[in-house]
Amino acid sequence: QHFSIAAIPGDGIGPEVMKEGLKTLKKIEELHGGIRFSIDVFDWNCDYYLKHRRMMPENGLDTLRDYDVILLGAIGTPEVPDHISVWELILPIRRTFQQYINLRPIKLLKGLESPLRYKSHSDLDFIVVRENTEGEYSNMGGRLHENTPYEMAVQNNVFTRYGTERVINYAYQLAEKRKAKRLTAATKSNGINHSMPFWDEIVKEVSREHSSIQTDIYHIDALAAYFITRPEQLDVVVGSNLFGDILTDLGAAIVGGLGLAPSGNINPEKAFPSMFEPIHGSAPDIAGKGIANPIAQIWSIGLMMEHLGFEEMNHLVVSSIEEVLIEGRIGTPDLGGKNKTFELGDAILKKMQEV
Amino acid sequence: QHFSIAAIPGDGIGPEVMKEGLKTLKKIEELHGGIRFSIDVFDWNCDYYLKHRRMMPENGLDTLRDYDVILLGAIGTPEVPDHISVWELILPIRRTFQQYINLRPIKLLKGLESPLRYKSHSDLDFIVVRENTEGEYSNMGGRLHENTPYEMAVQNNVFTRYGTERVINYAYQLAEKRKAKRLTAATKSNGINHSMPFWDEIVKEVSREHSSIQTDIYHIDALAAYFITRPEQLDVVVGSNLFGDILTDLGAAIVGGLGLAPSGNINPEKAFPSMFEPIHGSAPDIAGKGIANPIAQIWSIGLMMEHLGFEEMNHLVVSSIEEVLIEGRIGTPDLGGKNKTFELGDAILKKMQEV
Ligand SMILES: CC(C)[C@H](C(=O)O)[C@@H](O)C(=O)O
Ligand SMILES: CC(C)[C@H](C(=O)O)[C@@H](O)C(=O)O
Repeated sequence: QHFSIAAIPGDGIGPEVMKEGLKTLKKIEELHGGIRFSIDVFDWNCDYYLKHRRMMPENGLDTLRDYDVILLGAIGTPEVPDHISVWELILPIRRTFQQYINLRPIKLLKGLESPLRYKSHSDLDFIVVRENTEGEYSNMGGRLHENTPYEMAVQNNVFTRYGTERVINYAYQLAEKRKAKRLTAATKSNGINHSMPFWDEIVKEVSREHSSIQTDIYHIDALAAYFITRPEQLDVVVGSNLFGDILTDLGAAIVGGLGLAPSGNINPEKAFPSMFEPIHGSAPDIAGKGIANPIAQIWSIGLMMEHLGFEEMNHLVVSSIEEVLIEGRIGTPDLGGKNKTFELGDAILKKMQEV
Repeated sequence: QHFSIAAIPGDGIGPEVMKEGLKTLKKIEELHGGIRFSIDVFDWNCDYYLKHRRMMPENGLDTLRDYDVILLGAIGTPEVPDHISVWELILPIRRTFQQYINLRPIKLLKGLESPLRYKSHSDLDFIVVRENTEGEYSNMGGRLHENTPYEMAVQNNVFTRYGTERVINYAYQLAEKRKAKRLTAATKSNGINHSMPFWDEIVKEVSREHSSIQTDIYHIDALAAYFITRPEQLDVVVGSNLFGDILTDLGAAIVGGLGLAPSGNINPEKAFPSMFEPIHGSAPDIAGKGIANPIAQIWSIGLMMEHLGFEEMNHLVVSSIEEVLIEGRIGTPDLGGKNKTFELGDAILKKMQEV
């Protein structure tokens, strides 16, 4: 089978971890005779912006449309305001290609210890389904009475039935496939009293079609605390764009850090390319040193393989990462080691070969 | 000095912990000859609602207005929708009385262990200043196309310069009084691109008047992760209504649980009564058993005393709680003990007597 991949290394440590990602793709071709990738690399990033005053060419989205998948490194530099780099590259991709699911496994890998004193591997193995196209990131709003004491800014949270139903449906379908048969939805309907009660209603509606799944609806504040106190009770967690974002960074922290956390921006219908990327950002503070952890990027390729129908390749990637972590000989500084990005990447590829 | 207190025990475990709170007030009078409280107890809660179809009488707010402070237990039962109990009691009090600061210390008490493996008491001692009157809890919004596939709900985040400046100013003033001279502001200006950039601008404006304070502005997702990975770098954290809410439940979790966490809803100008309450809710699952942890309620009275100008009384309350925790003989089930609410309350009062 042949797959076309658009790779966008991006800024900062993005290109550094992407290099390991591209090596991983090669290794997969090598190991699985039936898979071929054709990869085009795009230099759309903040440097590109500083030269062209746009994050990608005018026909950028059209260019991407024809690929099977998009692989992203990380975007952002101190020189370009976040709302430009984000709103002219990442968010248009997520939205144009109806990547309405942002899938983020929270799993303590073997060989790693959680910063939570009493939690072990079996306690920390769940997945967050984040709405990825609407909600709090609406781009709708503005200001009034600028430069007066009465100045104000308004931003709309926009929740549609269409957008909410599809993510809740997806989350339940995922819950049906997993062992624990539990779904936890994040809300804040006590404080945010128009949009979140609507979200809750739809959760309850969809829950009725899934009587085998235990549904809990928790306020986001309480749920954030449960990530610390009782993560073992979580299986599939579903949240709005903002809540899913907060919960997954928190989730990454309790399983060992952002350097490890992968994500998939998925269009389940496969009508458009899906995009796979580390949760971490471009980390300007360590960029250029070659010491970034490549695991999040490599694991993102695992998620990509699963999306393309090769679940066993995701298992291979994850178990190879775990083997390296268990041995504990090679690690980047964030893992307490002294190795370079490429050394950790190489160690993982070697394991993929051996397993 | 004489202070009038309106006590609203509320629902569930609210009245159970309030009882210990009222005992604490008595003890304070006993220990400090110069302080007298006159206390009126109000039965405004969900039972009241079920009888009268309102959470408080029509003139409820006017009644409260004349008190020096309000002491709240907890509000909410499964029988009354959250948005009623919250929007007809707690939020009107916060707003009418311009309690625009919600002050929430995150401090690992001596005698307790953090669930964070590598964090000790000196790592976990900061304070969150939460905006308490506007922002995401706007009560502004609604629905369109109900009962069609095109149904949608919109909720406005409303940030005013007035409302934002006053909370940021307060946070900086607090930071000036503390040792670390650091202020961390929560934002999400990369995703929420109208209201949060406005918030950031005001943080930066006010920061210029406080050159001795180091200011960091972090996205809420990253900041939630920092609560786990590097809480020792936090001193004063300031967040919007929603972000402050999420961060403080998370903060409570990393210092030992919601049963311990106090809060003050403060009108710094003292033009109106301030309100002190535990962060925890009414906990219907354990209500009626007499096993709720009274510490959050008792500590809230410490915060109240500080607000009334008796900082040393807050120290007395906190150090007495710590003494009991260090001894470790008396504890409610959430602390791993087998004692009743009143036993823990009594033990703390005894310490207050002795210290
Ligand atoms: C009851 C609810 C609206 C409230 C809030 O979010 O403000 C509670 O969680 C709190 O933190 O006091
Ligand atoms: C860059 C930013 C807008 C983004 C988000 O919040 O979606 C990032 O934090 C992420 O989680 O992918």
